[in-house]
Amino acid sequence: MQRDSTPFTLAACRRAAAPFALAALALALTACAAPPPAAQAPAASSPAATATTAQRPASADAAQQFTLANGMTLIVKPDRRAPTAVHMLWVRVGSVDEVSGTTGVAHVLEHMMFKGTDTLPPGEFSRRVAELGGRENAFTNRDYTGYYQQVPANRLADVMALEADRFAHNRWSDEEFGKELAVIKEERRMRTDDNPRALMYEQQMAATFVASPYRVPVIGWMGDLDAIQPQDARDFYKRWYTPANAAVVVVGDVDPQQVLAMAQKAYGGIPARALPVRKPQPEPLQKGVRRIAVKAPAEQAVVSLAFKVPQMDSLDASPSNDDALALTVLAAVLDGYSGARLDRALTQGPHRVADSASAGNGLFGRGPQLFMLTGVPAAGKTPQQVEAALRAEVARVAKDGVSEAELARVKTQWVASQVYKRDSVMGQAQEIGALWVQGMPLDADVRLVQRLRGITAAQVQAAAKKYFGDDQLTVATLVPQPRDPAAKPRPAPAAAAGDMR
Amino acid sequence: MQRDSTPFTLAACRRAAAPFALAALALALTACAAPPPAAQAPAASSPAATATTAQRPASADAAQQFTLANGMTLIVKPDRRAPTAVHMLWVRVGSVDEVSGTTGVAHVLEHMMFKGTDTLPPGEFSRRVAELGGRENAFTNRDYTGYYQQVPANRLADVMALEADRFAHNRWSDEEFGKELAVIKEERRMRTDDNPRALMYEQQMAATFVASPYRVPVIGWMGDLDAIQPQDARDFYKRWYTPANAAVVVVGDVDPQQVLAMAQKAYGGIPARALPVRKPQPEPLQKGVRRIAVKAPAEQAVVSLAFKVPQMDSLDASPSNDDALALTVLAAVLDGYSGARLDRALTQGPHRVADSASAGNGLFGRGPQLFMLTGVPAAGKTPQQVEAALRAEVARVAKDGVSEAELARVKTQWVASQVYKRDSVMGQAQEIGALWVQGMPLDADVRLVQRLRGITAAQVQAAAKKYFGDDQLTVATLVPQPRDPAAKPRPAPAAAAGDMR
Repeated sequence: MQRDSTPFTLAACRRAAAPFALAALALALTACAAPPPAAQAPAASSPAATATTAQRPASADAAQQFTLANGMTLIVKPDRRAPTAVHMLWVRVGSVDEVSGTTGVAHVLEHMMFKGTDTLPPGEFSRRVAELGGRENAFTNRDYTGYYQQVPANRLADVMALEADRFAHNRWSDEEFGKELAVIKEERRMRTDDNPRALMYEQQMAATFVASPYRVPVIGWMGDLDAIQPQDARDFYKRWYTPANAAVVVVGDVDPQQVLAMAQKAYGGIPARALPVRKPQPEPLQKGVRRIAVKAPAEQAVVSLAFKVPQMDSLDASPSNDDALALTVLAAVLDGYSGARLDRALTQGPHRVADSASAGNGLFGRGPQLFMLTGVPAAGKTPQQVEAALRAEVARVAKDGVSEAELARVKTQWVASQVYKRDSVMGQAQEIGALWVQGMPLDADVRLVQRLRGITAAQVQAAAKKYFGDDQLTVATLVPQPRDPAAKPRPAPAAAAGDMR
Repeated sequence: MQRDSTPFTLAACRRAAAPFALAALALALTACAAPPPAAQAPAASSPAATATTAQRPASADAAQQFTLANGMTLIVKPDRRAPTAVHMLWVRVGSVDEVSGTTGVAHVLEHMMFKGTDTLPPGEFSRRVAELGGRENAFTNRDYTGYYQQVPANRLADVMALEADRFAHNRWSDEEFGKELAVIKEERRMRTDDNPRALMYEQQMAATFVASPYRVPVIGWMGDLDAIQPQDARDFYKRWYTPANAAVVVVGDVDPQQVLAMAQKAYGGIPARALPVRKPQPEPLQKGVRRIAVKAPAEQAVVSLAFKVPQMDSLDASPSNDDALALTVLAAVLDGYSGARLDRALTQGPHRVADSASAGNGLFGRGPQLFMLTGVPAAGKTPQQVEAALRAEVARVAKDGVSEAELARVKTQWVASQVYKRDSVMGQAQEIGALWVQGMPLDADVRLVQRLRGITAAQVQAAAKKYFGDDQLTVATLVPQPRDPAAKPRPAPAAAAGDMR
């Protein structure tokens, strides 16, 4: 629960260091299959806006959800502790929506969204946000693409107008595209090709999934980036950037009705357009272990085990939903806090086999989910030993179960996380958006913690027994190679540290 | 050389038993990267047709190639031994041209091409071909799709008119699509899902290639077949079935100039259309062994090794072209004739490790090529032993080379195959079309044999040393499972045996 199923960087962000700490829950929630029908195709007769309020104890600060007449979603969460507001635009489109041959285009388009509109020249968007005293960035993942600005609350209408302009009127030249593509390829080189663990993870996903688009890296295959054309990004934009496929999330010192009025002015006039049918691309049943070695210059080996597991398709009780929750509890028991089972068994003491070890479960998402076990062998230990030790800890739970004390500990953490996450308006907006992408209701965060708290020790033990055989397992091993002493270190990126543009 | 790189069925044909024996060379030639520019986009100012004759000793029976004004290719090869003619339409489109989410659509469309035109109802095409005394079928592969009829030579114009009609005016109802899709899914179940070796091969290709479209089965993933819509097939047809992407091949008791006149009448009026840009989708460099197990109900295990190797991009001499040829000679030395090295070392004598063993090299194709080693363990032997024995035979060539007698033997076979293939007009048309798909010249078959004959023992030995490490290797093992005694045998298909419609 502390980590999602992606031990290494999955999201391809315009900048390396996102300025907000992701809430633990938002991380665990990485997308469920079907968005609510209402968000797919607005009825022609819908009123100017419809509203929903989270079904939690009514309060002035409850999040409120509206649907504009063109199908766009607006979610507003007042948080009046500081005179600031976060404005995020979420588009339910990510690398899962790409087709082969143009992988990476969702992320490329995210970059190009900063390169101008019918009325703004390249760079002007960011200049104006800065002028408003704002900070901004964007992110692309498998399931979604997002853009955000944080500004003084009284400048919200200004950033909304800017964001609505590029959502509806993004435009740039082929030359601008070519320049930005060079930046993106450099991003791929730095973050994947020169990063042995990222390279291994990329290969592991490609081996784990044969048909699901989760097999493809968010940044795209380099061969596809080499061949991508400006029109590919323009087509992708036209296809997916429609009001019914987007949500505006505002958290901060704001009044929901005022924000609704602003949003109707900024976004309400964008014409509705039908969304193309999405192909489900289900993953065929895996029937046998897959093992891949990835050789790359590195200091240490890594071994990573990906088990295919059921995912939640709603908050309701069902055998697979319950198992997905039990697996999430299992991951937390193994690795949910400092000194949890994996730490104690693998990384401590004189006979420790690993320098680090981790577990994570993918609870839901737009594609199939994994339970991951990962470890870095200690000096003198082999990946095989680490794999055996990781699996032994799951087997121990399968055999002996978990204690009530452990369960209580991880559950207390989740309850606490509900409180902690309110510390950051960014984190709140991030979680609200991530839940919307998955078609979840506004109160899904609270209900999900309730569901997790209801999981019993017996359910955790049963899940540990059921899902950790060889047949749905893909193991990747990073096999360290000596670094080429003649290789020049890659020059630092042109922008400031942490600003990987 | 005797086999291509596909030990199990790759092509998805409308019927299981193709009525012609494929010429050995045509099999080895499975597609090179770039078609000749002339075939891509005909110049607006081109004359009604341009002609090329194969640069072999001029004879009345030499193949002649023409390009119609709309960009369509026509190749005519007189063969007057019987009053019959084969008419084949080749379209340079196969599963490599599909995008994720609609895998299998090239093959689905091939089926739908029998389901009517603007003027013919479903089934009428085949009825008319039968009425002409003809036999007919079609085939889809990774690199191409083909349709053919064999008729009495004096009915050639009739089948040409029928084929041109469906090439330009294919049309069918959604209902017809639904019915045929059920047939295609049953084809997938019989030929892949219920065929353990095919299933293993499908999974091996998916593991071998992470970005190349060669990773996808020609028949398509079942999840994609479940979701495919009639419009997907119509769009694919509109996109790829253009004159510049097609060749008509006629072999038989015909006169080239008369066939040209017929073709201009039948096909010449189809309007030229631009071809969409193809994405190259190159395969990233593999850097470490991949091993997959595939469990399926079966009697015997199978182990299959796929090594990534260079492929020919033309008939010219170059290091990678020469290596590709040397690897093809190596495959023939190992497995090119009864009693060749693999047979002697693995499948004979009291200590034999395998019931069968084979080697094959992919010489060229529209996607990346493989050298395959495959074996079925003998009773009491393991896949590991068979893998070791297969690799030991390559290592033996790397260490000790090959004898001039072995080289002479495989080279004599290729020369003989040049003669044998003339036995069948079908085989000749098949080879001509397969070469055209790869952008090869008309005399490529003769020149290729010349090139193969020029390969030395030292080149074969060097190739055996160079390409058989672990880093570009993907090993698949079929792990036999007991058959479910309760499972009912699948009912035989409705059509007669060998007629998998």
